[in-house]
Amino acid sequence: PETLRIAVTPGDGIGPEVVTEAVHCLEALREKHQLPLEWTRFPWPSHAWHEMHGEVMPHDAMAQLADYDAILLGALGDPGPLDDPDRYLLPDSVSLAPLLDMRKGFDQWVCERPARLLPGARQYLADERARDVDMLVIRENSEGEYVGQGGRLRQGTEHEVATQMEVFTRRATDRIVRYGFERARLRAEARRAEGKTREFRTLDGTRRESQVCVITKRNALRYWGDMYTEVFEEVAKDYPDVATHHELIDAACMKFVQAPWAFDVVVASNLQGDILTDLAAVLSGGMGVAPSCNLNPDNPAMPSMFEPTHGSAPDIAGQGLADPTAMLFTTARMLEWLGRRDPSLTMAGRELYAAVAADLAENGGTRRDTREIADSVLARLKE
Amino acid sequence: PETLRIAVTPGDGIGPEVVTEAVHCLEALREKHQLPLEWTRFPWPSHAWHEMHGEVMPHDAMAQLADYDAILLGALGDPGPLDDPDRYLLPDSVSLAPLLDMRKGFDQWVCERPARLLPGARQYLADERARDVDMLVIRENSEGEYVGQGGRLRQGTEHEVATQMEVFTRRATDRIVRYGFERARLRAEARRAEGKTREFRTLDGTRRESQVCVITKRNALRYWGDMYTEVFEEVAKDYPDVATHHELIDAACMKFVQAPWAFDVVVASNLQGDILTDLAAVLSGGMGVAPSCNLNPDNPAMPSMFEPTHGSAPDIAGQGLADPTAMLFTTARMLEWLGRRDPSLTMAGRELYAAVAADLAENGGTRRDTREIADSVLARLKE
Ligand SMILES: CC(C)[C@H](C(=O)O)[C@@H](O)C(=O)O
Ligand SMILES: CC(C)[C@H](C(=O)O)[C@@H](O)C(=O)O
Repeated sequence: PETLRIAVTPGDGIGPEVVTEAVHCLEALREKHQLPLEWTRFPWPSHAWHEMHGEVMPHDAMAQLADYDAILLGALGDPGPLDDPDRYLLPDSVSLAPLLDMRKGFDQWVCERPARLLPGARQYLADERARDVDMLVIRENSEGEYVGQGGRLRQGTEHEVATQMEVFTRRATDRIVRYGFERARLRAEARRAEGKTREFRTLDGTRRESQVCVITKRNALRYWGDMYTEVFEEVAKDYPDVATHHELIDAACMKFVQAPWAFDVVVASNLQGDILTDLAAVLSGGMGVAPSCNLNPDNPAMPSMFEPTHGSAPDIAGQGLADPTAMLFTTARMLEWLGRRDPSLTMAGRELYAAVAADLAENGGTRRDTREIADSVLARLKE
Repeated sequence: PETLRIAVTPGDGIGPEVVTEAVHCLEALREKHQLPLEWTRFPWPSHAWHEMHGEVMPHDAMAQLADYDAILLGALGDPGPLDDPDRYLLPDSVSLAPLLDMRKGFDQWVCERPARLLPGARQYLADERARDVDMLVIRENSEGEYVGQGGRLRQGTEHEVATQMEVFTRRATDRIVRYGFERARLRAEARRAEGKTREFRTLDGTRRESQVCVITKRNALRYWGDMYTEVFEEVAKDYPDVATHHELIDAACMKFVQAPWAFDVVVASNLQGDILTDLAAVLSGGMGVAPSCNLNPDNPAMPSMFEPTHGSAPDIAGQGLADPTAMLFTTARMLEWLGRRDPSLTMAGRELYAAVAADLAENGGTRRDTREIADSVLARLKE
């Protein structure tokens, strides 16, 4: 079988620490199952920028990465000199640029961030139904608020005007909404296969086994809000088996805290998705456990990118204290994704997921350092 | 003394029901203390629009309101015909227009939304420190994401592009940030007067009695994010007694759930403030208790507007089920605001606040209808 190739970019701060453990797990799984998998490490930390003539990645970085089948990213964000993390060398807009470059350059137009509160993970909400949270937030990842257009007129003067343009296309709206409905169907199927069901009501009171909730702020940001609403209603006609729902972003944030167990699939714009997925991470127990997948579902020539939702965590970088759980869940998702090309990788992804979940169930809540958590997962993989 | 005049606009859905109770409380307080206060009711529900030639307010509505010292607003948002609230007559962008017109037309550039979890209010977070939440979210209310500029190119076709412009000025940024620091100082003073203190750390580890946290998304929305950051750092120099903090909107939402007791004053843009104040409402026990003040602090000729954070709640409108608590807290804030003109109103505002808080402490959590809650508050006022 063809060998699938992974570009490993450890990045900044705690990135290299958690990525090292992800690679240990990949090694163990490859050896155990003879997986057709290889990887290359690209050590491009932000703070190497001064050796690289003010660039945070080499000039041909995107071309280099394009040769790979997936990118496994640790975390980006200049953590400053490790002896004084309050003294940053680079602004975020520089050190995080590779992240946005990859998402855009490889047209990773879907960002998937699931939220489930697994046994052992911390429960932040008082209501015990918080244990039942099981949603998938799908974030539009290619346009919207993140197009980077705008500027500063009369910069620095008292008459300054700063603008930022939001640009939404019907094409990108259609594909992300459609993707949401497809995932809702797959989730209903998966539940059925496990003998579980969930019920969602439509407006006319009838019941469906899955739901897509679209998020806008159409009462204030009318133009794209109206377009999103129209596209959503149109696409929904092709999925009569899926219940539909609409929430405004402010109300959605509120309901993520008041009744998050009522959501199934949530489709949101780039910025609104960014906000909701941080809340979704909290619902899963916090940043320590939240994976993130930046996917290009329709162009196999372009690698998808997998990263934990967390950042480079300057405050604990270099001390071996970072929780690698989110990184390991992310690695499991990457393997499942590559399973489209070779089914042995789907199995390996599920095995890794199960090992991390088992470790969390047994030890979640106890204070452990990076190595201890990774070793416990590795021991399970080697059983 | 001059008589202060209030324009009462009940609005839509549950608006008239909760406003009626607010007026009962105003009557009781006026009688008890001979307050120099009068009010006029402006019944302009959204669904009267067809009698008004497609307008949701009369043409001279803003001129009429300009004569008053404050506006007390119930709620806006067409609730549909009450026998079938799923059938709306008007889109939100029409029925909510008066809200945005008032905020803009009367230059109510501050929106203040406090969050405290009072005894009797529902606690959504598991951590018992949630009881200590005591923050004030200050939302920039005059520009930013809400300028309403943009459009739809090739509307309805597959090549459609929708744009929405965000416009931020240094002047408006400076005034809202400065307002935040002033309020932080006042809050510290008020705490000291009550013999309480709180401690916030600055970057260099020293302690302050109050804090301002500014919110941006400067790592992705650079232009205004950078301007906000610069203005914040500049203004902070005038307030060395106040600790400063910066959060990205996604991280701020997360921390509102994970550790909201760490915030004091939070300053955010129009949309980011909208999102954070819904979360802040949850931290206070939900929409049923959350007041909102739209203030013009520097032009006495323009009325400020007071409304609960909640909407018109079509699902329960017309049934006498709405919780008037948020409306009554809002009325108390209005009286305190008018207290700048006549101190007897400050006292009346505090009395109303205390009566509502006492009712909440005694009966919060029991199922009561609108009248029962209002009667219990009224009884306390008449004691
Ligand atoms: C680092 C930042 C630019 C990024 C984003 O806003 O997309 C992050 O918050 C995320 O959620 O992946
Ligand atoms: C109704 C809507 C336009 C409004 C807003 O977004 O400002 C509301 O959500 C609020 O918070 O007052």
